[in-house]
Amino acid sequence: MPLELTPRTLMGPGPSDVHPRILEAVGKQTIGHLDPQFVELMEAIKSLLKYTFKTKNEMTYTVSAPGSAGMETCFVNLVSPGDKVLVCINGVFGKRMLENVTRIGGEAVVLEFPWGSGVDPRKVEEELKKDPAIKIVSFVHGETSTGVLSDAEAIGKIARENDCLTIVDTVTSFVGTPLEVDKWGLDAVYTGSQKCLSCIPGLSPVTFSERALEKFDQRKTPVQSWFLDLSLIKNYWGTGEKRTYHHTAPVNSLYALYESLLLIKEEGLENCWERHFKNHLKLKEGLEKLNLEFLVDEKERTPQLNAIRVPEGVDEAKVRGRLLNEFNLEIGAGLGPLAGKIWRIGLMGYSSRKDNIDFLLDCLKKAL
Amino acid sequence: MPLELTPRTLMGPGPSDVHPRILEAVGKQTIGHLDPQFVELMEAIKSLLKYTFKTKNEMTYTVSAPGSAGMETCFVNLVSPGDKVLVCINGVFGKRMLENVTRIGGEAVVLEFPWGSGVDPRKVEEELKKDPAIKIVSFVHGETSTGVLSDAEAIGKIARENDCLTIVDTVTSFVGTPLEVDKWGLDAVYTGSQKCLSCIPGLSPVTFSERALEKFDQRKTPVQSWFLDLSLIKNYWGTGEKRTYHHTAPVNSLYALYESLLLIKEEGLENCWERHFKNHLKLKEGLEKLNLEFLVDEKERTPQLNAIRVPEGVDEAKVRGRLLNEFNLEIGAGLGPLAGKIWRIGLMGYSSRKDNIDFLLDCLKKAL
Repeated sequence: MPLELTPRTLMGPGPSDVHPRILEAVGKQTIGHLDPQFVELMEAIKSLLKYTFKTKNEMTYTVSAPGSAGMETCFVNLVSPGDKVLVCINGVFGKRMLENVTRIGGEAVVLEFPWGSGVDPRKVEEELKKDPAIKIVSFVHGETSTGVLSDAEAIGKIARENDCLTIVDTVTSFVGTPLEVDKWGLDAVYTGSQKCLSCIPGLSPVTFSERALEKFDQRKTPVQSWFLDLSLIKNYWGTGEKRTYHHTAPVNSLYALYESLLLIKEEGLENCWERHFKNHLKLKEGLEKLNLEFLVDEKERTPQLNAIRVPEGVDEAKVRGRLLNEFNLEIGAGLGPLAGKIWRIGLMGYSSRKDNIDFLLDCLKKAL
Repeated sequence: MPLELTPRTLMGPGPSDVHPRILEAVGKQTIGHLDPQFVELMEAIKSLLKYTFKTKNEMTYTVSAPGSAGMETCFVNLVSPGDKVLVCINGVFGKRMLENVTRIGGEAVVLEFPWGSGVDPRKVEEELKKDPAIKIVSFVHGETSTGVLSDAEAIGKIARENDCLTIVDTVTSFVGTPLEVDKWGLDAVYTGSQKCLSCIPGLSPVTFSERALEKFDQRKTPVQSWFLDLSLIKNYWGTGEKRTYHHTAPVNSLYALYESLLLIKEEGLENCWERHFKNHLKLKEGLEKLNLEFLVDEKERTPQLNAIRVPEGVDEAKVRGRLLNEFNLEIGAGLGPLAGKIWRIGLMGYSSRKDNIDFLLDCLKKAL
């Protein structure tokens, strides 16, 4: 009956291993969500989120729910029924974006790419030139289902030049790979707490540009979700004169988020990006020695999420099962058309460590 | 920079003080949300939730977000555009229900009661007889904004007799006051983790009856929220042959929820109800000695949330400020039309203890 869990080493697509300091923070005594101390904590989190998103956006906060709700926050606030949205799909999360657009009653223009390839900025440009009614471009920066990194800077530039807003999924890329919200001109960007932040799962930091808020202010219909409505949230997380109660914030999870952001700040964001990249190179070297191949072309790889082809004749589930049951090591399976064909090895946040890579390579060698 | 918080005693409308065992549980090492151990934990939580809701409903789980998202889950899944819903309003949360209905495009029939009074079942019956097109009745069991407990059993019976489903807010009442989902025939019931469960804030347990699921299956339009869509959730939390990934569950928060439910099970649900009631009587006695009056008639009081009239000539914010700053004791203010007029004193979950009542009465005496 008491909660007894065998600890694991988490090297899948997320959650990643949570840093001990974060696990300590989450268990601190709960205070009220209207306590002045909590308001201070919210301000500190906003400031650290601006640092990690590389933005000055005032409307930078965390959604009180996982990444899927962060995605939904961006779509329900910026897309009104009838709005034309270019949805780039190169994996599971692009497909989820499409679900969001259609459920709002938006008109989706779908641009598909093979799973394992990035979103081609030239194709985005072609589509926008062809159809000037498109006003929003949505795409995934680092596709968690394939380990592909798309060129968010180039797509952001093209979108701006064509008078479009961007909605960008950075769940896997955030703090593990360069991301510059302001410099790249991205408009609505969401992420998750459980990847390179190494925080507990359940929160979704987001940021909205001034341009995005202008479009929001021009809405003619109410946002379909009360819980995610920016006009209410901005009085809770915003810098208005008087903070207004909206919902009960997940107080302890925010303790954890604060601690995780503090760890990034202490390491330095750019150093954190570099650590993720260097560890990717080390893993790559080891995998190549085991004759394992990457799914994704070298120039499009997300360093923190490595999609590896399952060798011919190998039962992928059996190998994953052995890693989990014999070594308490979790890696991820493939999804959708890649089910059974790839493994997904995460080197995210606190999991992205040299000793973890040695451990994984050793276990993989034994299990194969 | 490190997270340093002055601990408080939480005797407001929630969150309540979190039990030390729950704070210990939430900080346990994170495992993956697809780990077989986690699947076991989900099953255990479902089973304990059935016990606490007093239901056999298979579709009993927790929404991965706070109570407001639990409310939204019930509405977006059961109300289709054009559906007529009777919304009973006797405080803040009834009003929030109305927001949910209108944002879905449902047709709301509003039945209002004074803030501080319960929902009158006879009025509900009159309305349903008058308008047979109404197919759903929504109301709040224990209104967090006023401390009123409505007769959920009587309203549930009337709704059934008139072929209506019920959507019931039990955020404040759950495990603190008798609630019998099956016996009373309630259909969609949601609660929050941060009140009488004394768990960390951020989760919203829900339960759906077979009748509710039948109505859900007859929907002609997709659920407007991807994140809250029952047809997807049931493959994640359900007892289907193969569990399907939906979103990343808030793993550590579920450790906490499990521990909080375990504590209820150990105490015994009925004993827990009784403890809340007895402590309410003790508080009442003490408040009366201080010549403080309740807002709500004796027969309609929620024992775990006591709304007290601010005495004539007293600056309510100043008193609350003194309690917080001098004694680290949090109580709640009034909301909406009751702002400045009442205090809300919570005796919820782990906060509902004799020593807390003595402490509060002593502090209140000094602060007045």
